[in-house]
Amino acid sequence: MTPKEDLQSILRPIEQYLIAVDEAIKSNLHTGINLLDDSSMHTFKKSGKKIRASMIILSSGLNNSIPDDIIDIACAAEIIHAASLVHDDIIDNADLRRGLPTVARLYGPKVAVLAGDYMYTKALEIAVWNNRTDLFPIMVDATIEMVKGELYQIQYSSIDKITEDHYYRIIEMKTARFMAACAKLGACVAKMNNEQADVLYNCGLQLGYAFQITDDAMDYLNNAEITGKDAGNDFINGKITLPLLRLLQIVGNKEKELLINYAKRPDNENWNYVLEKATEYNVVEYCINIAAEYVQKAVKLLSVFPDTQFKNVMTELALFFVDRRY
Amino acid sequence: MTPKEDLQSILRPIEQYLIAVDEAIKSNLHTGINLLDDSSMHTFKKSGKKIRASMIILSSGLNNSIPDDIIDIACAAEIIHAASLVHDDIIDNADLRRGLPTVARLYGPKVAVLAGDYMYTKALEIAVWNNRTDLFPIMVDATIEMVKGELYQIQYSSIDKITEDHYYRIIEMKTARFMAACAKLGACVAKMNNEQADVLYNCGLQLGYAFQITDDAMDYLNNAEITGKDAGNDFINGKITLPLLRLLQIVGNKEKELLINYAKRPDNENWNYVLEKATEYNVVEYCINIAAEYVQKAVKLLSVFPDTQFKNVMTELALFFVDRRY
Repeated sequence: MTPKEDLQSILRPIEQYLIAVDEAIKSNLHTGINLLDDSSMHTFKKSGKKIRASMIILSSGLNNSIPDDIIDIACAAEIIHAASLVHDDIIDNADLRRGLPTVARLYGPKVAVLAGDYMYTKALEIAVWNNRTDLFPIMVDATIEMVKGELYQIQYSSIDKITEDHYYRIIEMKTARFMAACAKLGACVAKMNNEQADVLYNCGLQLGYAFQITDDAMDYLNNAEITGKDAGNDFINGKITLPLLRLLQIVGNKEKELLINYAKRPDNENWNYVLEKATEYNVVEYCINIAAEYVQKAVKLLSVFPDTQFKNVMTELALFFVDRRY
Repeated sequence: MTPKEDLQSILRPIEQYLIAVDEAIKSNLHTGINLLDDSSMHTFKKSGKKIRASMIILSSGLNNSIPDDIIDIACAAEIIHAASLVHDDIIDNADLRRGLPTVARLYGPKVAVLAGDYMYTKALEIAVWNNRTDLFPIMVDATIEMVKGELYQIQYSSIDKITEDHYYRIIEMKTARFMAACAKLGACVAKMNNEQADVLYNCGLQLGYAFQITDDAMDYLNNAEITGKDAGNDFINGKITLPLLRLLQIVGNKEKELLINYAKRPDNENWNYVLEKATEYNVVEYCINIAAEYVQKAVKLLSVFPDTQFKNVMTELALFFVDRRY
């Protein structure tokens, strides 16, 4: 099985919900303005992993069954995530996303900026439907943190400034808090008590760390054909992530100086050298091991919930985060 | 007096509220991430016209006094407007805004995309503070319409496709509905009845048309020194607005063909020719007259409210919309 088929197989028990989320995304984003409909739906043309929707749906079912009104908020989370990708791809000047040209490449940066704005705003509108005032603050706060994280990453884009502490702070804001919010949103829709909601928030946080560390590690593997994304994207866009920080810790002083100089001129040639060294020093393996520790913490947190099918699925999903080859 | 001094003088009776709005913007946007704080506050460095905040504040006072809790929502409206400017300036590749370099010029497009995202999201968060579920839908709907309007404008950016009907639809979505929402938000905070809230929505709509038509007309005046914006910005960025549509209606067939060809290659040289013709045919005056009709409609609508100081100010503000030379 391919990793994508693996994931589909793991998520089979909530497949009907994920299909409903896809339909909700389509109907919610529709405006009748062709250029907007085409550009805002483009990211969904190839089905994404829908990790965030899955986290919401699975969390909501951990006590018993999944509430019917889970779809809207899961749809909102996927739209916000997609909006961030549309804007990221302008920022990073990326060519491919999910194996297709990015919105910015296909429709130009003007349309991409506006399509992302529309998606963010529409998703936040969905989050307050039915006067659910408890969901909106969680969702909007997580969105704000995500954007702040991206800016914090730009502020610490210099190899001379960034430390491992900064890196962890970046991925917490950029990814982990949004995943944490997703897990908590599921708890809120299912009307769980505060204690369970907090456990799920914390669990989502650990999974978010694991997810982003793995994602950053994958960018140091030469696997464009599998991922549909260019490898070395982060390095070339001046994003200093854990694999490089690790590499700098373990190489000799001379090598370190060379690598720092290469990171300051992140072109393709320098990337090839960095990739070679990263492979030589097994930094991807190191990162995946750290991610696996986060996954273990997350799985432990789930022990407060009864053993159910959805808990099994959530555990399998958590393990998949560090096992995925894409 | 300069137009800016004129406006300040008109708005003197609500000056204390506008100062409070400025302070609220500053404290709400603060994050502690320097790059984000600097870029998101940049647009507010030179005080803008604060038309939207003024509409909210004045509307809220039309029955008697201005409610104390008006500041947050007025602040949210100004931040959303500023966010749209930050993203517009990336899209239009503009150099100047309020006489200063744009956020995109100063911090680069990466930061500008994210700063705008942060501002939009933060403003929508402010709009739901204190569980005011009645305000958020108005605000978010207006924001969505604004973004849709911008995309609709890109969809109809071709001189062969756009009609006057499209133009009016664009400015309704892009500007008028947001101003209408501002007027209605004032009514909601002041707990006016639905009838009065609807009158104010309609009044704001008319003022929005007047405001945007005047703004588009001003771009056909050579007045960069006064406005702090480049003239011809719209034409050069492929935005077909009322002055050009009017010009095409009144020139002879040969001239029309030439102008259409120029609009398809909107460089500086062609702009100079279009500006010359626009001046010759008094299209700016034509547009201002249309805007003045919208203002008259708006002023008439205000007649349902008692004669108070705030109604006077709102009327003066409305008249200023078509009189402003910047």
